[in-house]
Amino acid sequence: MPFHQLPSIAKLEQLSKQPIDLTDENILTPKRIDSMMTESLGMRLFYATERVSEEVMTALFELAEQSQAVHKMEAMQAGEIVNFIQDHPSEDRPALHTAMRDFFDQRNTGSTARIATESAYKELEKLKNFLSQIELQGRFTDIVQVGIGGSQLGPQAIYLALQAYQKPHRRAHFISNVDPDDGAKVLRSLDLSKTLIVVVSKSGSTLETLTNQEYIKEYFRRLGLDPKNHLVAVTGQGSPMDDPGQYLSSFYMWDYIGGRYSTTSMVGGVMLAFTLGMDRFLDFLRGAHAMDRLALSHDATKNLPLLSALLGIWNRNFLGFSTCAVIPYSEALSRFPAHLQQLDMESNGKRVNKSGQVVEFETGPIIWGEPGTNGQHSFFQLLHQGTTVVPLEIIGFCESQYREDVIFRGSSCQDKLLSNMLAQSLALAAGQKSDNPNKFFPGNRPNRVLLAGRLDPFTMGALLAYYEHKVAFQGFIWDINSFDQEGVQLGKVLALRFIEQFALLRQGKNPDPKTFPLGHAYMRHLL
Amino acid sequence: MPFHQLPSIAKLEQLSKQPIDLTDENILTPKRIDSMMTESLGMRLFYATERVSEEVMTALFELAEQSQAVHKMEAMQAGEIVNFIQDHPSEDRPALHTAMRDFFDQRNTGSTARIATESAYKELEKLKNFLSQIELQGRFTDIVQVGIGGSQLGPQAIYLALQAYQKPHRRAHFISNVDPDDGAKVLRSLDLSKTLIVVVSKSGSTLETLTNQEYIKEYFRRLGLDPKNHLVAVTGQGSPMDDPGQYLSSFYMWDYIGGRYSTTSMVGGVMLAFTLGMDRFLDFLRGAHAMDRLALSHDATKNLPLLSALLGIWNRNFLGFSTCAVIPYSEALSRFPAHLQQLDMESNGKRVNKSGQVVEFETGPIIWGEPGTNGQHSFFQLLHQGTTVVPLEIIGFCESQYREDVIFRGSSCQDKLLSNMLAQSLALAAGQKSDNPNKFFPGNRPNRVLLAGRLDPFTMGALLAYYEHKVAFQGFIWDINSFDQEGVQLGKVLALRFIEQFALLRQGKNPDPKTFPLGHAYMRHLL
Repeated sequence: MPFHQLPSIAKLEQLSKQPIDLTDENILTPKRIDSMMTESLGMRLFYATERVSEEVMTALFELAEQSQAVHKMEAMQAGEIVNFIQDHPSEDRPALHTAMRDFFDQRNTGSTARIATESAYKELEKLKNFLSQIELQGRFTDIVQVGIGGSQLGPQAIYLALQAYQKPHRRAHFISNVDPDDGAKVLRSLDLSKTLIVVVSKSGSTLETLTNQEYIKEYFRRLGLDPKNHLVAVTGQGSPMDDPGQYLSSFYMWDYIGGRYSTTSMVGGVMLAFTLGMDRFLDFLRGAHAMDRLALSHDATKNLPLLSALLGIWNRNFLGFSTCAVIPYSEALSRFPAHLQQLDMESNGKRVNKSGQVVEFETGPIIWGEPGTNGQHSFFQLLHQGTTVVPLEIIGFCESQYREDVIFRGSSCQDKLLSNMLAQSLALAAGQKSDNPNKFFPGNRPNRVLLAGRLDPFTMGALLAYYEHKVAFQGFIWDINSFDQEGVQLGKVLALRFIEQFALLRQGKNPDPKTFPLGHAYMRHLL
Repeated sequence: MPFHQLPSIAKLEQLSKQPIDLTDENILTPKRIDSMMTESLGMRLFYATERVSEEVMTALFELAEQSQAVHKMEAMQAGEIVNFIQDHPSEDRPALHTAMRDFFDQRNTGSTARIATESAYKELEKLKNFLSQIELQGRFTDIVQVGIGGSQLGPQAIYLALQAYQKPHRRAHFISNVDPDDGAKVLRSLDLSKTLIVVVSKSGSTLETLTNQEYIKEYFRRLGLDPKNHLVAVTGQGSPMDDPGQYLSSFYMWDYIGGRYSTTSMVGGVMLAFTLGMDRFLDFLRGAHAMDRLALSHDATKNLPLLSALLGIWNRNFLGFSTCAVIPYSEALSRFPAHLQQLDMESNGKRVNKSGQVVEFETGPIIWGEPGTNGQHSFFQLLHQGTTVVPLEIIGFCESQYREDVIFRGSSCQDKLLSNMLAQSLALAAGQKSDNPNKFFPGNRPNRVLLAGRLDPFTMGALLAYYEHKVAFQGFIWDINSFDQEGVQLGKVLALRFIEQFALLRQGKNPDPKTFPLGHAYMRHLL
């Protein structure tokens, strides 16, 4: 049944006409804070500052039931085909990122999932051997990840998040953009003789990545270095990049791993295991796996990603908010919002449901965000007093990573960080009356806080998977396909037409204005 | 007269009921591309891919006239009081960031502006002497900017944008977040004996900045270094930080320079002149000044920031889009969207007009963005096929900065970068029909492209001021105060109440639950 016809929808629509008023002191009480809090895997989710009543929560849990959200999660993790559009040519395959970390307790029993896990384990073993070997040789201090989209955003976000745990004298860098200045800036800063290059492209044909690979090879050759001694591939088996003549080694990924879900596969694995060491990389996988298991829980009050998905749907489809800001109170998570931006918007920025019908409701919101407390001194003005309401997902940790702190005016930096986080959550919800209209805060800005003990590899893995499953649950509930990305094709095709024009000019030929009139019009105006 | 009562508004509302259809091949033509293009200061703005007709443009130009946008810009640049809310206590002062770079041709003749420029020039001279001195001593290779909000975002964005032009062996770093891991990560990576620390706070009392300063001083002392030999202050004259006992030197800023408008003052100046050298810093100021002059033009077709402001108002108030994505096709501009996020959202995220009335229309949109081509492999799926339309501001350059490139398959990286940029602009506007609903692109996604020759210091200065004035023009047209930020106060007050609770706990005291019941409820649940 399509989303908008599920029986709980009418009830939720009714309830959304008069959502509770968080500026009322009799509503936002200590008791509400205590009761709208749930804990799993050492994480606490506080949602008293969302505009939900007990009735709304009950209706949302019904929505989860009626849309069979957890059953679909079970199907996904077991390896059933979930990436499809019915009656239309589509990718028609499973989405098995959970199999990339199913090496620990309570393994999935689905036969497709088991086969995928076995393949993933082989790559992990191959990686372990490869890293021991280069460790023995002591050849490399730096690693450059060459990839774009999911081959960069997730891996980079996790690398930055876990820098406090990395091996000494190992650093990672990233080249993604086809902008030649991206490569130039990174390569100039490195001793390339000690640098390992990981080139990541599932198809082995991503234009940006192949171009950057060529750019890098040129750089090596100019320095008298043989690129082959520095390059490693992460690609599909049998792709043009699966070539021992060109690479020290090839690590495999599969068509059932979407780019934006690939951080726990070899796409993130080679770079993360190189910088963190294998043990910490395994802790990271262990955390992701623990969240995978939690996502299978039919108790929606304990199933953190499902609970978060439902609150997001309330904000998106019933209260009508078109964006969602992710605000980590953790500088280490500075690029995590950029990863979530891809994860969520590429997965759920869709207009067609899985039956191929154009949807009659809103799907994925616009995801954006920056760390707090920085954001408070930037865009929080609009969050408090702007004319557009932005729901917030706040993430925080009780302890710092480096455990270096200073007491200033009676409190530590970490105390101040947590104080600011909780203060913003309350201030946005409760608002403040004032006779001065410019000092009046309307409040009722919905937000929730996910709190964990410390951002370590296990917790980071759990947090990554929490969002992967939140996004998947929303897709399941909306009945859209969260695992394809047809929307990126048109731009690619048009870009190739422009590139053809540039190539002609480079050959000294004048392109015929009639073959691509709009393109020709722009090209004439280039400076 | 309030915005919604201006005579052109009714006309624009009428026109917005049937905006032109960019998916119609007879509308989006080469002729339209030629005619909807304007050039000033070596920059070209293409807006054929906005949903505007000639009639809409005429009405928008009338709106500019009726709201006296350019007169208000003249008043601002001359130093009249523009930061106020009538009949209510407010900051009541000028906004004179343009005076910080009015050192070149065609200087402003307003007496307040001239005095401000003279003061700014003194600081510039002081900086020149200071830098020559430390250059002679050869003491410093690295500089750490300690500041938050406008004291970090703009300066960091410009530093990254102009790294290709920086002096060899000079690097800048930034500590802003009160998160102790922010400081730890930066300080661990440096040889502090060769590091200059610039602490930036106008009031000399910003909690994050003073805390981080203390954190850094501790770090120096632990290494047996005297912090006083490394610290420089940028602050208001007479502030607690204007203290020769604590700093090598103090550089001044003034209450008429808002944080988010302060990059061309000493707030950005010390760090940028240290890394770029004084000549290039002056080129940067020269570019900003050139755009300041252009913003005074009454010819709205040439006045780039005014034109951009009007197109933004069309998208926000008449087509009803609540966000705007800034997509620079330039990796060097990777943090420029984060600066613009503050600049725009803190300036125009307001609910009260300058007469103190609650507005009856939408004000500043949510600004977000990441560089292309990276974004194409991330959130562009939603831009093409999501249910929420996002207008785009695209920025591009014909030449690269480093001029290092490679020909791969007949075209350069730069060719490919420009091809992708233009392709996305067209694809978003024109869309594509298909029988497969999942391959159907609805189009009519409005966007415009600002194109310049090369991202050098002059162009960067012009681009910075282009956005400063775009934002100011929108504020002038909406008749809101773009220069205060009352919305950040409530969170600060509540944060201090939480900090008090933490401080009591550190003293071994149990806070009374009754003094701050909601705070107490959260604190009990910390992990």
